[in-house]
Amino acid sequence: MSNKIDAPINDIVTAIVASYRQDEYLIKVDAKNQISKESIIDILERLRSLIYIGFFTQKPLKFDSIEYYVGEQVEDLAYNLQKQIRLALRHRNPEGDWAKEAAWVTRQFLSRLPAIRSILATDVEASYEGDPAASDKDEIILSYPGIHAITVNRLAHELYLLGVPLIPRMMTEHAHSLTGIDIHPGATIGHHFFIDHGTGLVIGETTVIGNYVKIYQGVTLGALSTRGGHLLDGVKRHPTIESHVTIYAGASILGGSTIIGEGVVIGSNAFITTSIPERTKVSVKNTDLRLMTDKSQADAEFLQDEFWDYSI
Amino acid sequence: MSNKIDAPINDIVTAIVASYRQDEYLIKVDAKNQISKESIIDILERLRSLIYIGFFTQKPLKFDSIEYYVGEQVEDLAYNLQKQIRLALRHRNPEGDWAKEAAWVTRQFLSRLPAIRSILATDVEASYEGDPAASDKDEIILSYPGIHAITVNRLAHELYLLGVPLIPRMMTEHAHSLTGIDIHPGATIGHHFFIDHGTGLVIGETTVIGNYVKIYQGVTLGALSTRGGHLLDGVKRHPTIESHVTIYAGASILGGSTIIGEGVVIGSNAFITTSIPERTKVSVKNTDLRLMTDKSQADAEFLQDEFWDYSI
Amino acid sequence: MSNKIDAPINDIVTAIVASYRQDEYLIKVDAKNQISKESIIDILERLRSLIYIGFFTQKPLKFDSIEYYVGEQVEDLAYNLQKQIRLALRHRNPEGDWAKEAAWVTRQFLSRLPAIRSILATDVEASYEGDPAASDKDEIILSYPGIHAITVNRLAHELYLLGVPLIPRMMTEHAHSLTGIDIHPGATIGHHFFIDHGTGLVIGETTVIGNYVKIYQGVTLGALSTRGGHLLDGVKRHPTIESHVTIYAGASILGGSTIIGEGVVIGSNAFITTSIPERTKVSVKNTDLRLMTDKSQADAEFLQDEFWDYSI
Repeated sequence: MSNKIDAPINDIVTAIVASYRQDEYLIKVDAKNQISKESIIDILERLRSLIYIGFFTQKPLKFDSIEYYVGEQVEDLAYNLQKQIRLALRHRNPEGDWAKEAAWVTRQFLSRLPAIRSILATDVEASYEGDPAASDKDEIILSYPGIHAITVNRLAHELYLLGVPLIPRMMTEHAHSLTGIDIHPGATIGHHFFIDHGTGLVIGETTVIGNYVKIYQGVTLGALSTRGGHLLDGVKRHPTIESHVTIYAGASILGGSTIIGEGVVIGSNAFITTSIPERTKVSVKNTDLRLMTDKSQADAEFLQDEFWDYSI
Repeated sequence: MSNKIDAPINDIVTAIVASYRQDEYLIKVDAKNQISKESIIDILERLRSLIYIGFFTQKPLKFDSIEYYVGEQVEDLAYNLQKQIRLALRHRNPEGDWAKEAAWVTRQFLSRLPAIRSILATDVEASYEGDPAASDKDEIILSYPGIHAITVNRLAHELYLLGVPLIPRMMTEHAHSLTGIDIHPGATIGHHFFIDHGTGLVIGETTVIGNYVKIYQGVTLGALSTRGGHLLDGVKRHPTIESHVTIYAGASILGGSTIIGEGVVIGSNAFITTSIPERTKVSVKNTDLRLMTDKSQADAEFLQDEFWDYSI
Repeated sequence: MSNKIDAPINDIVTAIVASYRQDEYLIKVDAKNQISKESIIDILERLRSLIYIGFFTQKPLKFDSIEYYVGEQVEDLAYNLQKQIRLALRHRNPEGDWAKEAAWVTRQFLSRLPAIRSILATDVEASYEGDPAASDKDEIILSYPGIHAITVNRLAHELYLLGVPLIPRMMTEHAHSLTGIDIHPGATIGHHFFIDHGTGLVIGETTVIGNYVKIYQGVTLGALSTRGGHLLDGVKRHPTIESHVTIYAGASILGGSTIIGEGVVIGSNAFITTSIPERTKVSVKNTDLRLMTDKSQADAEFLQDEFWDYSI
């Protein structure tokens, strides 16, 4: 024990260290280097800078010399990503070195970047077409949380497909923290995807989404029940959304065999657990409202600051 | 190509650079300096420090000498803000220099700060009056997300009114990221505005809100449909909320001609697309609940971890 | 006035300083050191590193020498926390020194860390058992927002119980900002608590939650009305949730005398203001949907991009 620690703190330190002998899965000691969250976030920032080139870099870039800049960035990125992937693979299986596998996965991933850029371009386009409040595409790239979330998701999804543990979810949870949009890296999402506002949106692991789909804040694409726990690993638990579907705010669509057909429009707050045929519009029929317009009574309650009587 | 890049990475770099010749609106090269998100965030932090003077500065301030501190802060702020506004104006119209316009706009904006402080003081007051959990006004200023969001919104709204492109939305989306509260800088909001909890709140661009309005988490003040896309630019698409209205959690109020009259109380989860006369209370009438209290059956299901049968 | 400030800025500075003579509760000058938000965040990071030892530290730790690391961390932590607690106590009552009280509270708090670790271990376990998408417990500790939120809450709750002003709420609002999960530090929460997704979850100050409770995104455990304002200080305004209860997404449970009995399952979007007996399943019965399947009409509307007619 360091003699810098005075007596009263000493017993606290001893008690904390003693607690490390319990709840073993909360400790990560006597292990080699751990995956670094900071590193994962830095990798995401660099990837975003490469995709939306010039938008998130402070110094002005020239097209003539851009290969030098990109080369340097990709080199750093490849080095860091490969290191984290190696740690993630070793995390899943501590036997073995995984350096070669990590190098191969990193290479595969980076070679997908141009294709990821192309599909993200369709998402930016869909965001511009779908939102009257968007003044131009630059505003969307610079500030829209939906574009941030789908950018991170498309990157994380590639790593997920390549079988990388831990990192894809760390990436999407970082985006979730910044945007309130929670898309599992396993979800499969078509082109021209538009999320408006987005806070509270949840898209589960086995969700499949077609092209030209538009989703608002507070929507859940979820499982009907997760009471089966890990028996449900790998089972399709989340819905399929076909192309040209619009899902308004607060709607929930649940279940692995629920299919929302092409061109369907789902109204706000709809709660759906069965398939909907194509080109159907679905709205909540009877959320009847109770209006209390007896002014003398309402006034009295208002002025007396009385209890607000919910009708349920 | 830098010779630091080894062969395997080289072709990835070439492919990425080639991809920059497509999807041109994802690239920002051969351009002059770009608007800096970091700079916008720094400007917001400095504005907040000036408004709630002493709350967000580490060194203790003395009233006698406060002009020196404020002078230095405003000087730095004016310099940085003017630069970003100039970049934003040039972004909208690359012809011209915009230095003079940027200087004028910056000056107009900064001269509104005392008025912005005064109205924010009413918001802090309303937050204190409305929330039994608030221990004092300092707690509100230091920690309430609603105050953070409305502070940023009132600042961004002034820049929006002054016709500054991009920056107002970058500011409010930064606040959205930190608070889950998404208020478009175009929204017009009266004094004594109180947001409680706030996560998931969406307030659209053309919303007009009176005085003493109180709004809870998950509320949407939105458009009925955005399928008109950019044909709807400038059209009033979002509701008008008159003074002394309370809107409980999860309610949606949609449409540009929807007017919620003075003193109305909107109950949780109400979905409203028509105007409501003044001093009315609106609640959702018939979200009838199905209670399954057959204990033997419920027990069996509970113990067997069976599928939970949603009633829909 | 500094002569570095040119004339046009000078009058703006004067106006801002003049505004400090109004709205006095927005200013914090002529005061001693203020509580530092940065310091509170740093304290939270250090606490998290100690609890999930090795997960959030960059250098690999060895069990043999871990006391040195923990000792150094606890020493720094105790110093900083004691300082902030002293500032918080002086904030509430500027008379007196509070150094001794702050030292005692800090010591009490730090000695609770092993117990806090034990209960958080049950939360990690419950998260793993409840979520088929969780690949292992490390993924949960490294990336799940629910675990982040409950970790901060259990720490803040101890400080709340010890009567520390301001700091507990600053801690939970920081977690709210990162996770979208808003748990008041006053809430009492049992072991094996599992939050899935979590965005938009609100748990009020006087809520009491049993063991093995599972809550999804968008749930509100709230007050029926807060129109009584500070007359309601200390009154139980939020519900009691007994053990083994599951609350699905978007449900609201309101009121201080509302008790949700053991083993109850609350379906999505249920709105509950009365007690529910044990082992009952509650679901929303009649959110009937209106399906418009007349294809010719639906097609026409779809193609013409017409107004979407909400059924309300």
